[in-house]
Amino acid sequence: MPHTLAHKLIGSHLVEGEMVPGSEIGLRIDQTLTQDATGTLVMQELEALGLDRARPDRSVQYVDHNLLQADERNAEDHLFLQSACQRYGLWFSKPGNGVSHPTHMQRFGVPGATMVGSDSHTCAAGSLGMLAIGVGGLDAAMAIAGHPLRIPMPQIWGVRLSGRLPPWSSAKDVILELLRRHGVHGGRGRVIEYHGPGVATLSAMDRHVIANMGAELGATTTVFPADANVRAFLRGEERESDFVEVLPDPGAGYDVADEIDLSAVEPLIAAPSSPGNVVPVSEIAGAEVSQVVIGSSANPGLRDFAIAAAMVKGRQTHDTVSFDVNPSSRQILADLTTMGATVDLINAGARIHQTGCLGCIGIGQAPAVGHNSLRTFPRNFPGRSGTKEDAVWLCSPETAAASALTGVITDPRDLADRLDLAYPHLKLPQRASVNTAMLAPPPPPEQARHTELVKGPNISSLPDFPPLPDRIEAPVLLKVGDNISTDEISPAGARALPLRSNIPALAEFTFTQIDESYPQRARERGGESGHFVVGGDNYGQGSSREHAAIAPRHLGLRAVIATSFARIHWQNLANFGVLALEFTDPADYDRIDRGDVLVLDDLRRALPAGAELFVRNASTGESYQLRHSLSPRQVECVLAGGEIPLLAAGAD
Amino acid sequence: MPHTLAHKLIGSHLVEGEMVPGSEIGLRIDQTLTQDATGTLVMQELEALGLDRARPDRSVQYVDHNLLQADERNAEDHLFLQSACQRYGLWFSKPGNGVSHPTHMQRFGVPGATMVGSDSHTCAAGSLGMLAIGVGGLDAAMAIAGHPLRIPMPQIWGVRLSGRLPPWSSAKDVILELLRRHGVHGGRGRVIEYHGPGVATLSAMDRHVIANMGAELGATTTVFPADANVRAFLRGEERESDFVEVLPDPGAGYDVADEIDLSAVEPLIAAPSSPGNVVPVSEIAGAEVSQVVIGSSANPGLRDFAIAAAMVKGRQTHDTVSFDVNPSSRQILADLTTMGATVDLINAGARIHQTGCLGCIGIGQAPAVGHNSLRTFPRNFPGRSGTKEDAVWLCSPETAAASALTGVITDPRDLADRLDLAYPHLKLPQRASVNTAMLAPPPPPEQARHTELVKGPNISSLPDFPPLPDRIEAPVLLKVGDNISTDEISPAGARALPLRSNIPALAEFTFTQIDESYPQRARERGGESGHFVVGGDNYGQGSSREHAAIAPRHLGLRAVIATSFARIHWQNLANFGVLALEFTDPADYDRIDRGDVLVLDDLRRALPAGAELFVRNASTGESYQLRHSLSPRQVECVLAGGEIPLLAAGAD
Repeated sequence: MPHTLAHKLIGSHLVEGEMVPGSEIGLRIDQTLTQDATGTLVMQELEALGLDRARPDRSVQYVDHNLLQADERNAEDHLFLQSACQRYGLWFSKPGNGVSHPTHMQRFGVPGATMVGSDSHTCAAGSLGMLAIGVGGLDAAMAIAGHPLRIPMPQIWGVRLSGRLPPWSSAKDVILELLRRHGVHGGRGRVIEYHGPGVATLSAMDRHVIANMGAELGATTTVFPADANVRAFLRGEERESDFVEVLPDPGAGYDVADEIDLSAVEPLIAAPSSPGNVVPVSEIAGAEVSQVVIGSSANPGLRDFAIAAAMVKGRQTHDTVSFDVNPSSRQILADLTTMGATVDLINAGARIHQTGCLGCIGIGQAPAVGHNSLRTFPRNFPGRSGTKEDAVWLCSPETAAASALTGVITDPRDLADRLDLAYPHLKLPQRASVNTAMLAPPPPPEQARHTELVKGPNISSLPDFPPLPDRIEAPVLLKVGDNISTDEISPAGARALPLRSNIPALAEFTFTQIDESYPQRARERGGESGHFVVGGDNYGQGSSREHAAIAPRHLGLRAVIATSFARIHWQNLANFGVLALEFTDPADYDRIDRGDVLVLDDLRRALPAGAELFVRNASTGESYQLRHSLSPRQVECVLAGGEIPLLAAGAD
Repeated sequence: MPHTLAHKLIGSHLVEGEMVPGSEIGLRIDQTLTQDATGTLVMQELEALGLDRARPDRSVQYVDHNLLQADERNAEDHLFLQSACQRYGLWFSKPGNGVSHPTHMQRFGVPGATMVGSDSHTCAAGSLGMLAIGVGGLDAAMAIAGHPLRIPMPQIWGVRLSGRLPPWSSAKDVILELLRRHGVHGGRGRVIEYHGPGVATLSAMDRHVIANMGAELGATTTVFPADANVRAFLRGEERESDFVEVLPDPGAGYDVADEIDLSAVEPLIAAPSSPGNVVPVSEIAGAEVSQVVIGSSANPGLRDFAIAAAMVKGRQTHDTVSFDVNPSSRQILADLTTMGATVDLINAGARIHQTGCLGCIGIGQAPAVGHNSLRTFPRNFPGRSGTKEDAVWLCSPETAAASALTGVITDPRDLADRLDLAYPHLKLPQRASVNTAMLAPPPPPEQARHTELVKGPNISSLPDFPPLPDRIEAPVLLKVGDNISTDEISPAGARALPLRSNIPALAEFTFTQIDESYPQRARERGGESGHFVVGGDNYGQGSSREHAAIAPRHLGLRAVIATSFARIHWQNLANFGVLALEFTDPADYDRIDRGDVLVLDDLRRALPAGAELFVRNASTGESYQLRHSLSPRQVECVLAGGEIPLLAAGAD
């Protein structure tokens, strides 16, 4: 039987289970990626696991998220991470080296390999024919320690590409088209596999753009074939010897099928405040813009900056616009500068920022309330920009640069008429400048074992969590709607991110985007007494941060009952002993109010026994049927209070 | 009688008083400079003054301090400032255009003119033969409204320069040499006037470096002659027509005289945590360095970045060092990039940050506790970096770049031996790229009058302060030592700066670097009941921020009794109705303890009557003689509760 690319990648790394969609499989992991916002906890978890040395072929710790250094805590995190890399045998990418995803692709990506990363956009590495999956920190720590990754076997969603993108449309518009069709949970439980003749018209970095934002569809990951374009990319990075061709078999069948004619893709934009609110740019053209930002892992390539530079060259961005450019890596900034494009951006009025994620994760660049900000970023969840009541739009570099020039949201196809600006045909260098001086390899094991972890006062230890009680009788402290993101559960941003190594301090931000009183009410209730949260569809979408599980758990959350869950957060809840339950009848969501007291009983018997159980609403006398999708291993984990107590008790 | 340059500049603008050192004079002001950290209050003050349109030849509002935009408040400030510039007829320099001092010098500086700026480093414009004086915001607002600047007539301190700087020493070392000799209050009550044959060996931008840090000596300002080098500078900026030769008369005599042989100046460094702790680099060479930052108004020129770039070209900065580069203006970054130096910095591992003040004012770049940070900045007061217990050193770009390469504090003269690195002889462009697109001129008056101020929720109004009571009986809530800076009274940094438009919120940070309990104790005491602060020598040195007067005033401060005061803060205290009194016998400082209750009586009679009065210590029964240096106008101002209530009462 001809195999899909995804099946080949999964099959060649399968160490547990069978490739039956929905059943748990275990995968051998070749590479890991961690970043600073999640990595400090990962390193604390490695310490808790008693690891001697990282087991994958390549484990790399990046510092790209929190680079503002508003006080000593960032620098403390950086020193801690550097020492932990030396101790546990990871590569360390210094602050300023670049955003993890494009940098990893450039320096370490290998076709055919598996990777987990404690960042939801890890899937970007699918651009090289890798099976790369975003997970919570503890799952990344387990992979670094040599354990397989356990996930439900996904369906394979074949997206056939045909045609070729027209001028002014680019890769970002392709993934926005998929989001326009399927929304922010269209990809749940699926691997998106791109195939067909249109694939060859996209460079490896174009594919990065598309693969990256598979995360916004909720997909397990995205894969592209490793073909001649991948070889050309690796040649340009002086790594052609790492190339392996990895293609789907001709005639492979997909669980789900879709098709995009690239030649029909028009400039699209995601309106505030969801990546799923996609409309044609032409529909909303003319709205005033006060900020335009180019950068992030969703448009990280040299091309993405160069096209913007070519568009603004010799012109001035509009008076009322702050035009911000966030180079994605040291290498890309160097190449952009050498080719003369950086100075074109500067002359046009760009603010060139340090390389890193920056505003994409709410680290600076917060817009004014209600003022439109256009960004080439992957996410525009409410408040993620650092501004409550923000108005953030997601678009291509072409749409962004066009709007920076005019001061209003502009379809770049209109520039010929408006500004006499023809589509610029770029000449990009075939070879990247390669400079690995900011990427430190790990020391040899005997030296590593003598490395002391550098723990400043802001580096706390992981909290201890007790086992799940057999009976939970507790109030619903919060009821939320559909598509609640981890940004709303545990915010990023310049105030909260410096506390990522300090759970008790971070917990004070939990759910405050939705209800400022939650942390205080939870503390008044008492962590030991427990409480419930009730959620709607796609609960916990977005980033991989396990803080969104640990912080409310620290405040006493014992169970979330929701209509459905996003994959990574669902796994994080299990990893930290929070029960994730789904309504069998989604209509029961409406029967529970905040403040109702719910009772779950006989859990030690009911959870392992099967997939269904009942919760009693002591405030109304009603009962609702629930189910869970936890594997037997995950049930054990939740009952033990989480993965670390379970491992401490002797399990694998 | 031959005149000094300073006398010529003062004499040509004198509208009140006589040029007798110590007596109050009034000066006509030609230009004003404000920046965002102080400017939002200035604009509120213009509103309180009911101004129709700015009166000086040129008033410019810069946005350079607070550019992180960690939440919506920064963007709110920017919109408010932009609208206020349009309303009141000021030029507006957009975020990203550059640091005020070098940008003003490049675009607006005119030899022979006077300027006030609500920034203590306004004196940098002395590089062009201007008389430029840093003041509090209210004094800047008064100047914008057309009032003369009133200051005590300074002494003129002639510093004769001879010889020529050797390789590896540069302008920064000249001003560090003056600080080494005279410390942080060596310039109080003086204008520093550089003259002699060595002046011609220094470019206009070198003179900016030296003039800028006259502020650190506590000088009223610094002046250099407007000579051929100034003409060449203005020619390079396409403004040769603005050149006027302004020189001292040959044989002019100075109130105080000093001399520096430039050829004997060696690389110097100011050790933590005062610009006055200057030692030769060679004395402390070898100490480990974890951060090196190049930038700020103290080393803002193209040369300052280009010399660092030439030194690191083709090399890598040290593994353990974060090498941060803060371009001082859009123009300088553009020119640096065009000449190829930016890419040399990037390739060597530099983190290129957005143009602005950044870490110089604690806006990011905070180092780890106890880890040495070398900076080309003007100040290293405790905690100003954003890190408590920081270890910040001030040095030239040469010393900074040398240390970035080696990872330890390094005398650049040792590089020939250590790294086979010869002194690079720079070829700089004679012409700057000139691009004024980010500098918006004010609209014409009829249009300006229709502009609405854009006031977001974080823009509060100025608090109202009641008149000084005739009797103050109140406790000493805080006693501090010598050289307390305004950074310690009202901190800058990423947490406090966004509150600069919101005094009640900002007040919670007052004195917290010294005593975290002060704001709470002051609130418990009650603002109406009042309290004293007792200080040592040079109280209130450093920045011009009037927040350091307004915030403690808001908390109830009525009088500071100190051994001596720094000029700008002393003026700010008077402007906001806080009585500044000096011990006649400095030994009395030791006789007062925190908690003592002090009594000042009959103030409405005693203050105008003369310069001496007594304070009774009710806790010990002792009395101490005090004096004040307030002019009759300032006494009126303090009695009225500050300048604004005084003006409201009808005074000029």
